[in-house]
Amino acid sequence: MVRYLLFDIDDTLFPSSEFAHLARSNAINAMIAMGLDEKKETLMHELYDIIQKKGSNYQYHFNDLCNRFGKRKEKAKLIAAAVSAYHNTKSSIQPFPEVPITLLQLRDKGYKLYIATNGDAVKQWDKLIRLGIALYFEDVFVSQELKVEKSPLFFEKVLQKIKAKPEECVMVGDRPDADINPAKKSDIITVRVRKGKHSKLKSNADYEITRFSKLLNTIRKIEKK
Amino acid sequence: MVRYLLFDIDDTLFPSSEFAHLARSNAINAMIAMGLDEKKETLMHELYDIIQKKGSNYQYHFNDLCNRFGKRKEKAKLIAAAVSAYHNTKSSIQPFPEVPITLLQLRDKGYKLYIATNGDAVKQWDKLIRLGIALYFEDVFVSQELKVEKSPLFFEKVLQKIKAKPEECVMVGDRPDADINPAKKSDIITVRVRKGKHSKLKSNADYEITRFSKLLNTIRKIEKK
Repeated sequence: MVRYLLFDIDDTLFPSSEFAHLARSNAINAMIAMGLDEKKETLMHELYDIIQKKGSNYQYHFNDLCNRFGKRKEKAKLIAAAVSAYHNTKSSIQPFPEVPITLLQLRDKGYKLYIATNGDAVKQWDKLIRLGIALYFEDVFVSQELKVEKSPLFFEKVLQKIKAKPEECVMVGDRPDADINPAKKSDIITVRVRKGKHSKLKSNADYEITRFSKLLNTIRKIEKK
Repeated sequence: MVRYLLFDIDDTLFPSSEFAHLARSNAINAMIAMGLDEKKETLMHELYDIIQKKGSNYQYHFNDLCNRFGKRKEKAKLIAAAVSAYHNTKSSIQPFPEVPITLLQLRDKGYKLYIATNGDAVKQWDKLIRLGIALYFEDVFVSQELKVEKSPLFFEKVLQKIKAKPEECVMVGDRPDADINPAKKSDIITVRVRKGKHSKLKSNADYEITRFSKLLNTIRKIEKK
């Protein structure tokens, strides 16, 4: 009998890949609006090159971008413009439209909802709060606090914390590598949401959905087994 | 003949004291909304106590507040709630209503506008951009970049940069200590805007205004001397 539903956040509950791209595009627009005289395409290309080289959690993307275009003197202005537009976009994130109602319906059926995510605890909480769904969850498990990235060990720690058996749990996420494989290895039932930049990859998830609202039916199917 | 107008930002171009208080109040509300079971008044009192002891630029106000109430376990959630509400408020700052039109009219009359402010360059640029007035200024002089807080030395460096004589300049600001006194010592003409938390202090400014739009008349008076 399923009792506990574990959810990833990014590209599972909201279109994080899309928002990240939009935030970067708005940031570049803002730099141009504040006087950076370069082509949008060139700037986007260089920005993604920096992101690829330094990683997406690197703090100084726009700083490096200014350096690449030799804008030492105007740096504070251009960075302020970029960061402000970037955060304005990131702070207006919205869930996939079917997410809030589906989560509420699952709660109404008596399932206990949890978050299981990689990343920084404050940043992940910030997303849940801005998405307007933070209060739906019993607890939030973040790799930073459990001191291990999503892996069989991460999921074993989660099972211990909620005092659950693996067969009572369903993990819902978009990433084969971080969500599906390690949960499966811990004998947790897996539902993959095909969304975002990892949607093309193959996975061995027990179930796959493309719309979040299909989760209700999927859980019903699992219960009937 | 006056040619250059230098402006402070906080409590001169926008009500920064008011916004800071509102941001803190919204942050406390958000913590309560996310489950912090304490009285609003108590939390505000403790927060202002932390701000007084650690300074307003200290990064961990809400962290310390959680510690004071023994909320170790819920810290990430409560900090995320507070910081998100705080930044939402801070990112919607608006200028004093007469500021944009007055600045434009001064530009139209041929005056060159500059910012002269203490603080971090990116943060001060961020305010100008959010206030929608960044493009009105020829240049922005921030203590961080000039490597000296507002003082006679700061203003001498500014005069050098814009190649101006002191008598061609007017400094407009709210603080007797940071804006009026050091500018006066550098023989710059001073206009004090009586706004914000420093509005009760005495000053020896050459001119005083309580509404920003009065600046047009004041400059006219200075020109007639």
